[in-house]
Amino acid sequence: MFKDALKDLVEGVDGGLACLIMDSSGIALESYAKEGAPFDIDTIGVEFSVVIGAIKRAAEMLEAGTAREMAVGTEKMVTLIRLVGDSYFLALTMRPDGNFGKGRFMMRTAVPKFAAEL
Amino acid sequence: MFKDALKDLVEGVDGGLACLIMDSSGIALESYAKEGAPFDIDTIGVEFSVVIGAIKRAAEMLEAGTAREMAVGTEKMVTLIRLVGDSYFLALTMRPDGNFGKGRFMMRTAVPKFAAEL
Repeated sequence: MFKDALKDLVEGVDGGLACLIMDSSGIALESYAKEGAPFDIDTIGVEFSVVIGAIKRAAEMLEAGTAREMAVGTEKMVTLIRLVGDSYFLALTMRPDGNFGKGRFMMRTAVPKFAAEL
Repeated sequence: MFKDALKDLVEGVDGGLACLIMDSSGIALESYAKEGAPFDIDTIGVEFSVVIGAIKRAAEMLEAGTAREMAVGTEKMVTLIRLVGDSYFLALTMRPDGNFGKGRFMMRTAVPKFAAEL
């Protein structure tokens, strides 16, 4: 079920490249990448799990409530991340010129479906 | 000059709360907060400078090019961050229901003006 949902996300967003669902210790449950995607989505997940840890701590220190989502843009990609419960996150990597708003919307609607299966 | 530019950013975006320009070691050059803003923008800057360090390392590991911008959403706020050259960043904190797209646009257009003064 996860594989299909991840594929729908990547293929449903202009500029979508790859997607994964990972637990917060950096273990991927499932991933999907378009053929020829220039980044390894599992490596992205592992690198960003460190970033997510730093953000969770920052949100706690600031008493800003639970961290929900983040986005990181570099010269070559945009990665959207949304937390799924306390222990998992969903990440979608897109081209920098991809449809960021659509990606954000699709992540938001996908999260409850993933949460229901975990 | 910085104070006025920061004020324009906060007041120019629906839901804008506070804004700062900080160097990457966590020292604020200048900040501006709306009266009654529920977060201390200098604390936000210090906390997020750790996150930015983690993101820069991740972008390097992934060979994804230079990190440019990030956004973090929690239950109570959204913070947009844009790097200004190698050593500074601009952060804007908004209410979660603020105009995210406008904030992102205004950050993008403001960065060259800050960069020219640094």
